[in-house]
Amino acid sequence: MNYTTQMDAACKGIITDQMKDVLSSEKISESDLLKFMSEGKIVIPANKNHKNLKGIGIGKGLKTKVNVNLGVSKDCFNLDMEMKKVHKALEYKTDAIMDLSTFGDTQAFRKKLVETSPVMLGTVPIYDAVRQYIDKPIKDITVDEWFEITKRHIDDGIDFLTIHAGLTKEVVKRVKTNRRLTHVVSRGGSILMEWMEENNAENPFYEHFERLLDLCEESDVTLSLGDGLRPGCLKDSTDAPQIQELIMLGELTKQAWKRKVQVMIEGPGHVPLNEIAANMQLQKKLCHGAPFYVLGPLVTDIAPGYDHITSAIGGTLAAANGANFLCYVTPAEHLRLPNLDDMKEGIIAARIAAHAADIANGLPGAMDWDNKMSKARHDLDWKKQIELSIDPEKAKRYRESAQPIDEDVCSMCGEFCAVKRSNRVLDK
Amino acid sequence: MNYTTQMDAACKGIITDQMKDVLSSEKISESDLLKFMSEGKIVIPANKNHKNLKGIGIGKGLKTKVNVNLGVSKDCFNLDMEMKKVHKALEYKTDAIMDLSTFGDTQAFRKKLVETSPVMLGTVPIYDAVRQYIDKPIKDITVDEWFEITKRHIDDGIDFLTIHAGLTKEVVKRVKTNRRLTHVVSRGGSILMEWMEENNAENPFYEHFERLLDLCEESDVTLSLGDGLRPGCLKDSTDAPQIQELIMLGELTKQAWKRKVQVMIEGPGHVPLNEIAANMQLQKKLCHGAPFYVLGPLVTDIAPGYDHITSAIGGTLAAANGANFLCYVTPAEHLRLPNLDDMKEGIIAARIAAHAADIANGLPGAMDWDNKMSKARHDLDWKKQIELSIDPEKAKRYRESAQPIDEDVCSMCGEFCAVKRSNRVLDK
Repeated sequence: MNYTTQMDAACKGIITDQMKDVLSSEKISESDLLKFMSEGKIVIPANKNHKNLKGIGIGKGLKTKVNVNLGVSKDCFNLDMEMKKVHKALEYKTDAIMDLSTFGDTQAFRKKLVETSPVMLGTVPIYDAVRQYIDKPIKDITVDEWFEITKRHIDDGIDFLTIHAGLTKEVVKRVKTNRRLTHVVSRGGSILMEWMEENNAENPFYEHFERLLDLCEESDVTLSLGDGLRPGCLKDSTDAPQIQELIMLGELTKQAWKRKVQVMIEGPGHVPLNEIAANMQLQKKLCHGAPFYVLGPLVTDIAPGYDHITSAIGGTLAAANGANFLCYVTPAEHLRLPNLDDMKEGIIAARIAAHAADIANGLPGAMDWDNKMSKARHDLDWKKQIELSIDPEKAKRYRESAQPIDEDVCSMCGEFCAVKRSNRVLDK
Repeated sequence: MNYTTQMDAACKGIITDQMKDVLSSEKISESDLLKFMSEGKIVIPANKNHKNLKGIGIGKGLKTKVNVNLGVSKDCFNLDMEMKKVHKALEYKTDAIMDLSTFGDTQAFRKKLVETSPVMLGTVPIYDAVRQYIDKPIKDITVDEWFEITKRHIDDGIDFLTIHAGLTKEVVKRVKTNRRLTHVVSRGGSILMEWMEENNAENPFYEHFERLLDLCEESDVTLSLGDGLRPGCLKDSTDAPQIQELIMLGELTKQAWKRKVQVMIEGPGHVPLNEIAANMQLQKKLCHGAPFYVLGPLVTDIAPGYDHITSAIGGTLAAANGANFLCYVTPAEHLRLPNLDDMKEGIIAARIAAHAADIANGLPGAMDWDNKMSKARHDLDWKKQIELSIDPEKAKRYRESAQPIDEDVCSMCGEFCAVKRSNRVLDK
């Protein structure tokens, strides 16, 4: 191969197989794809060790993508169930899967995941490092050990890694001098902060960022620069610690791009609706147009059990203002690990948000699906309406549970059906 | 009484009992309330015949309110179930209930509803007129008969009436010359259009608007001017027919205000996210600041089974840009009449949207609830988190279904709990 990473290929004008995948599934021109990839505005996470991957692009001019988190913990340890979730996630058309496992033989599960999944995969290696070295205090994990686990994930074929390299000493200082209501809610962020504080040391991934880039470059792994200080509640949003970290992430982005390592930026979190557009603009500016991967944002803190909805609201507005990749949030968020049903609810909500934002962004062809559905509604064609639904099974189940006397209509309006009546008046 | 309507009272500087209710539940000053009510920017729907009503205000400077639709149809006729829905709707804290019944002894149900409900009630009298005169063609219903049924609803104590008075001959002409994908999706709109077309007559409620105002003034019934031409799909949104009708509604608003009859304006519908803010501004401008009552807006057409989510997204953005009153949409929308579970999902989604918008609008005190929840999260106080949840039952059920080994945390992160870890580092 005469290129290192997908970004390097784009800079050299080479169309990779993964780019061909993207061109066949999106309405973007070859020249725009090459241009945006060479500028870092589009990434195609594609680890060379993930053999059965179908390339999916994230970034400018492309459809908004969604990610599903799964993985086992000590409290919820059932690997069969977790593989079932993988298949369900693929069935419900996720664009990516992150494995956040923190217990058991994580490598065996990870390898099986790589073998199984045609969609890109992500992990957070420091979770796995803490699991690996659970018998010693976090502060005693060495720099080599952090990197060893990171390399293991790369060798196993993971396409993008969340690395909280921007949580520097300077940034930790900010979180001490600007007291928050919920401090640090990122698991990775809190682990690294503890390590740094107890060792009075700099963030190992910041200090040895070039070492990390060596690994990423070699296998073409995309860095998903983590937001260790994403706000954990509305009150903490858009505060000095969050923005300070974002500034660092912007600097690291440039450093990675020099090596043609692909970069995404992770973002908040809990954010009031009126601050979302500003957060997106700020990220795009400070991080030089790198793709933005957001968790939520949740627009209120008071709805545990319904955070797939609070995040669909925030996610739509985020993606309509620059976010490119939405991490799903399920009804179980803040309460427990999601089960299969939660996962389904989470994916559908995220896909609704992504699609609604694509329409708002005027993405070519985005509204075709809606127009087909509307035509089927006008035609009172129920078979087609159900086929075109984002979840045909649920739509069918609902309709069949309350069949109207008149098969043309639905049981909400029955003989009062406005579509039928207005067709009679206007289609004559 | 030395005033006719709540608006008339406000103009005369009289604080009514219903205004006192509003002042005790909102953070608005007496002078602002009087000012905005006298300008028509706040309404308190309060029929003099609805004796046990607790006054709730809708409009500028007040919390966004939510409405629940219910009512029986020929296909779903179970009055006991419908009364159960009323009690559930009140339990889940709806601010209003609309009874859209189209079958059976609607008056008996309506009277029971008025007796039962302390929250404001709305209806669409023309549905009931069509039911009443089901044995003759719609065109043969007389102007007196339309008004007779309308008066019946007023006498029974309904606080606000949806009247599609803006769907004039001029407006119907627009819907013929600007062909839509889904024509007319408002039941009321399609009924009136049929009546007008077949009789070659003007809209009876437009032509005899003063007669309607006489009735409204007498019992202080609020007009909810219906949007017969709300878009039924994204493609039809913000089109000439919709805006033409809105212009008419703005004129009728002024006419009603001359009589001190309170007015709300009903709005779309299906609207792409990027058109929502403009729609809200347009309504506020064309209708002189009258409160805006929206159904949805749904930001995509492809999610039957999940339209509580598509409308929560649109509703939040709408209410953050001027809408004051959100009609709930349930997962059953477009498929069947909602059952109890659907209703609950719909109310919670609408309340999340309303609350998130109040926060975005900087409404004084709106974020207090969130801050209390965030404090409980910081404190790892699970009892309090559940108490403060919008749906404590669901939050409790989720948490208890997967109890972690360590009672401090939840089964998502377990021993990886970032809150616990960062408290240890930062709260020392």
